[in-house]
Amino acid sequence: MYKLVLIRHGESQWNQQNRFTGWVDVDLSEKGRAEALKGGKALAERGFKFDLAYTSVLKRAIHTLDYVLNQIDQVWLPVYKEWRLNERHYGALQGLDKAETAARHGEEQVKIWRRSYDTPPPRMELSDPLHPSKDPRYKSVSAKDLPCGESLKDTVSRFLPLWSDTILPQIKAGQRILIVAHGNSLRALMQHLEHMTPDQIMAVNMPTGIPMMYELDKDFNVIKREFIGDEEEVRKAIEAVANQGKAK
Amino acid sequence: MYKLVLIRHGESQWNQQNRFTGWVDVDLSEKGRAEALKGGKALAERGFKFDLAYTSVLKRAIHTLDYVLNQIDQVWLPVYKEWRLNERHYGALQGLDKAETAARHGEEQVKIWRRSYDTPPPRMELSDPLHPSKDPRYKSVSAKDLPCGESLKDTVSRFLPLWSDTILPQIKAGQRILIVAHGNSLRALMQHLEHMTPDQIMAVNMPTGIPMMYELDKDFNVIKREFIGDEEEVRKAIEAVANQGKAK
Repeated sequence: MYKLVLIRHGESQWNQQNRFTGWVDVDLSEKGRAEALKGGKALAERGFKFDLAYTSVLKRAIHTLDYVLNQIDQVWLPVYKEWRLNERHYGALQGLDKAETAARHGEEQVKIWRRSYDTPPPRMELSDPLHPSKDPRYKSVSAKDLPCGESLKDTVSRFLPLWSDTILPQIKAGQRILIVAHGNSLRALMQHLEHMTPDQIMAVNMPTGIPMMYELDKDFNVIKREFIGDEEEVRKAIEAVANQGKAK
Repeated sequence: MYKLVLIRHGESQWNQQNRFTGWVDVDLSEKGRAEALKGGKALAERGFKFDLAYTSVLKRAIHTLDYVLNQIDQVWLPVYKEWRLNERHYGALQGLDKAETAARHGEEQVKIWRRSYDTPPPRMELSDPLHPSKDPRYKSVSAKDLPCGESLKDTVSRFLPLWSDTILPQIKAGQRILIVAHGNSLRALMQHLEHMTPDQIMAVNMPTGIPMMYELDKDFNVIKREFIGDEEEVRKAIEAVANQGKAK
């Protein structure tokens, strides 16, 4: 049996402003730092230890991981920063707030981009100064792999090679792995692990900063999924996830 | 021509208490955090960017690197945490303060351990709870490589494979590398790069938190060594290093 722990980064400075963040490298807010700290404490209280950690190349996830490693006293842990764990790339919407987006593209269209599994947002132009090809952190990524606007389906596709080729074999080899990433890259993983339909995964929303542990059998079937934290918070987190399902 | 930047971690909580720290995983002091932040700002002001960073598996170095990466806005940089960059292992002296050590072993003997290039301190027993073989961060290191008490000469020997096999080829391949480590692991590197005698390297003491840049020619001869920081601080750092040389 295997265990795997996932954490969605704490609130970012743009979550508060309700802007499409995607690959923009926005840091944690004060609240986000507190969430990260609390998630780390919860793991420490339960005595969690890991062999490896994965995160994205975006600082809101990396800093969340830093808080956690400090709390579990494993600052020395090998950390792999992988672009395939980045948030969904929101294309030309990145940086816009809800009102701006609605004004430019209409309310209905924005709903489709947010709620559809496979409709990508408008592409970011290659000439855009924010295009990933201009960012040194992606210089070793081949141009054909770099997204310029993803649906959740696209995010799943670019995440899966990292899972199948790298993380999965390590888990099978007995490595205890912690993944600190983003709402949509974690959805990609959850959909894959739990064999969810597009509708099912679109209805799931990971709570921020609350570690979630999977227990998997030898064939990687999910035996259990459990939030790690104080009872009240975990109850709220489970309820919130359940309600999102109902609202859909 | 190649460039390489070295930083010695900021002051630790035990530096203040004047205890032999070695491989004990003591964190930065408040002053040490301020030093790390300042070192990072100095690099940022000069526009330094890197492709890779190396540090030890000890949190006083890792946290110093974290401050620097935040300041130069390269939190996403690949970071390799290497035990071969750890501080000199102080054997059975680890954890003792100067007074305790003098009481147990005599003033003269302590001087020899501190000032000799090749006299190791008393060995740490395998049964000692602090022995590295009991620490999960070293579990992938073969028992014969794990030190239990090093002279500076021993530190040089265990550092060099990392340099020759890994870091040097990367520099030659054009990677801009930042190394954040410890007084003695950085001495090991300096001795090697500058072809210093034991006496010469024992007389050198890197200032904490002040980045030092090497410029190297194509054959890895040192062309220049330069501290990065405000003029007054750099002047003090150079003087301090020079005076250490004279005092010897």
